[in-house]
Amino acid sequence: MSSNEASLSYAREHQDAFLDQYKDLLSIPSVSTLSEHAGDIQRCAEWIAAQLRSMKLPVVEILPTPGHPIVYAESMNAPGKPTMLVYGHYDVQPADPLDEWDSKPFEPEVREDYIYARGASDMKGQIFAQLKAFESLVCQDDPPFNIKYLIEGEEEIGSENLEDFIDSNIEKLACDFVLNCDAGIYSQDQPGITYSLRGLAYFELEVRGPSKDLHSGRFGGTVRNPVHVLADLISGMHDAEGRVTLPGFYDKVRELDAEEREAIAQLPYTDEEWMRISCSKALAGEAGFSTLERVGTRPALDVNGIWGGYSGEGAKTVLPAVATAKLSTRLVADQEWREIGDMLRAYVEQHIPEGIDWEVRELSGGPGAITDRHSKYMEAAVAALKVVYGKDTLFTPEGGSIPVVGMMQEKLGVDSILLGFGLPDDGIHGPNERQYLPNFFRGIETYIHFMTTIGA
Amino acid sequence: MSSNEASLSYAREHQDAFLDQYKDLLSIPSVSTLSEHAGDIQRCAEWIAAQLRSMKLPVVEILPTPGHPIVYAESMNAPGKPTMLVYGHYDVQPADPLDEWDSKPFEPEVREDYIYARGASDMKGQIFAQLKAFESLVCQDDPPFNIKYLIEGEEEIGSENLEDFIDSNIEKLACDFVLNCDAGIYSQDQPGITYSLRGLAYFELEVRGPSKDLHSGRFGGTVRNPVHVLADLISGMHDAEGRVTLPGFYDKVRELDAEEREAIAQLPYTDEEWMRISCSKALAGEAGFSTLERVGTRPALDVNGIWGGYSGEGAKTVLPAVATAKLSTRLVADQEWREIGDMLRAYVEQHIPEGIDWEVRELSGGPGAITDRHSKYMEAAVAALKVVYGKDTLFTPEGGSIPVVGMMQEKLGVDSILLGFGLPDDGIHGPNERQYLPNFFRGIETYIHFMTTIGA
Repeated sequence: MSSNEASLSYAREHQDAFLDQYKDLLSIPSVSTLSEHAGDIQRCAEWIAAQLRSMKLPVVEILPTPGHPIVYAESMNAPGKPTMLVYGHYDVQPADPLDEWDSKPFEPEVREDYIYARGASDMKGQIFAQLKAFESLVCQDDPPFNIKYLIEGEEEIGSENLEDFIDSNIEKLACDFVLNCDAGIYSQDQPGITYSLRGLAYFELEVRGPSKDLHSGRFGGTVRNPVHVLADLISGMHDAEGRVTLPGFYDKVRELDAEEREAIAQLPYTDEEWMRISCSKALAGEAGFSTLERVGTRPALDVNGIWGGYSGEGAKTVLPAVATAKLSTRLVADQEWREIGDMLRAYVEQHIPEGIDWEVRELSGGPGAITDRHSKYMEAAVAALKVVYGKDTLFTPEGGSIPVVGMMQEKLGVDSILLGFGLPDDGIHGPNERQYLPNFFRGIETYIHFMTTIGA
Repeated sequence: MSSNEASLSYAREHQDAFLDQYKDLLSIPSVSTLSEHAGDIQRCAEWIAAQLRSMKLPVVEILPTPGHPIVYAESMNAPGKPTMLVYGHYDVQPADPLDEWDSKPFEPEVREDYIYARGASDMKGQIFAQLKAFESLVCQDDPPFNIKYLIEGEEEIGSENLEDFIDSNIEKLACDFVLNCDAGIYSQDQPGITYSLRGLAYFELEVRGPSKDLHSGRFGGTVRNPVHVLADLISGMHDAEGRVTLPGFYDKVRELDAEEREAIAQLPYTDEEWMRISCSKALAGEAGFSTLERVGTRPALDVNGIWGGYSGEGAKTVLPAVATAKLSTRLVADQEWREIGDMLRAYVEQHIPEGIDWEVRELSGGPGAITDRHSKYMEAAVAALKVVYGKDTLFTPEGGSIPVVGMMQEKLGVDSILLGFGLPDDGIHGPNERQYLPNFFRGIETYIHFMTTIGA
């Protein structure tokens, strides 16, 4: 590993300044799914671009898309050296339910070793650590490698416009590998790298009975209640073994091979720990698989939201006209996310009773992916983590979706190294999201070591 | 029937004035279930009391309860004559969903022969028609019978404080029968009187899985999703025959006897008409019973509302911590509404999976009832309807709940004559509630004829 003491010193001396800037970034409510935050999204893109400009990258652009803009930057002044494409996103999930937050989601607060804010872990903390690592490198010297940044604003809404953007910019984005910072490690002091990801197919399912809300006394027991119909449909989507019943759902799921099963079994994991981080009193899922196998190698289906009828104070005796659910499937490598909508429609068609109208709306989706655990870039990441944490990296399969990983594999022909510093119990997407600050700073140092090796 | 031409003339001459006053009453948003409307409730009670005072009733009082006040009035100056207790309520259901109304719910609008407003039919229109009938009588002379008014403000939230009020005022409320105006007729030109009513037991069922919302990718497929659990519970509450599966639910339901079955079969009814008024493309329900038998003589269970997880714009990949349903049972005579909560709890206990917390909250309830079709007061009502409509009255069983009818039977030992002028397609409890105005005015005349006979 090349010498990088000056960069590490710079990073250590500037910890307070970095934390202040991190708070500034977290204060921007860049919620991509809510149109009322369109201005905040724009402001956040400009904030990121200003950071990149301050590092004197020759190209820094805010590129429009039909949705939210992409921040792009590059420095290609190291001929013969590898080109790294850094991927991140500056958008965040909505903050609700607001009343379950202990501090305000867009007023970052440090309590003990954590900083609390929406996006602290997913993923403003990760992309910002990478930016500060690069700043620490280039304040000393020109970067000894080529670098490109692609930081999008639509990851939390399924990266709707990213595919078209990549298709239109294949040459611009050409690289040797992707450093994808939208990632986490195993536990506070144990480095880990995710090597597989689940894909996503997300839908809204609406069922309509009577064309208007009815009095439940006058009509109860004589017409079908759409909430009951929706409950029947949801209830039937899993069988007694915990398997998803959408027709054809498992057709392309690859068998779990003995080597991967054994590697997973050797991870220092307990069901008690999973219960703790999932805040659950019991675990459940598909029969025949361990918890880590379920989350890392098996597809799943979850209702993400449901609503219909009266949900206000007190008793309203209404028989609702409409009931709706948001539901999504998590997919493993080889499942085609674009085929899931047809499976869902076929399932509803099979089970819908007479006189009930229904609609399936596709909201977003993306493929799963598996990354080579033995490439030289992966080895550089493992080496950097070893320097900072003093431990070997655990390779883990991951239940979440990072559609861009599959997309980069498909479009640019490159693997992604998932190097980030979130923790499983950071509460991402829920209330009280947080980032463990010691790993934010270790993350900066890990990125410095990693980039130093890449440029060596 | 005694002469009452002067009263009828008065009523006919004052139709425009009555309509204006009716609009004033409908403009008061006396929604009992929403605490923000407490002031409107009070205002509405005062409005009703002012009407009663203008008719020179010797006693007019607004009596407090732990909830909303009861308007009480009486005139007991006809010794030896029957005493009639007029029952009504001045509260209304919430108006949501607001965006499905064609005009504002609390800005009454006349379009063609209908007046549109929340409460137009249920039941400000009915109680106000009775008040105007009484005004038409007493502007000529003292009433030739004794009369008491009990007009409550909590019918739409289960008449929570009425039972205690009656218990504390048994002597004050003593009467020969109740005229309950919270009722409807068969169709626009066909008089009908409801002789049986279903009771109500209304609950909230909450299920809790993880103690906070989780990321559905990271945890999906490894922990139970409370929305799925709630869907399973709801789905299992009916069997394939459309029967409710709560343990013991049918134990006290009386067999439908041949005579009642035949009377129901002879009602001029079609399933096509029921589909039209229920705005439904198909009918459904318990096997072995006709639609009218289902609604009038069989109990039912309906989910009135459901919510959990994310229901905003776009795709939020959350595995919700909590899911909740409002659900209610409609009960027939002899079922004990206070026992249904225990049946629901026993059902949930039997089916709830490991690691899921749950709670059943009782929101409101009341008994069903059956009224004697051959009493002299019922015969007076039938005669009055014959004069105004020129047709014999159809006796119909009703699916809705008027808990006070069972309560009056139990506490005061008297039957209720359900004489009101709402129509099945008035859209009560839903958007665009309306009252057919020709029957509002015929209703006033029917009440005049009825009261004249009672006093003869």
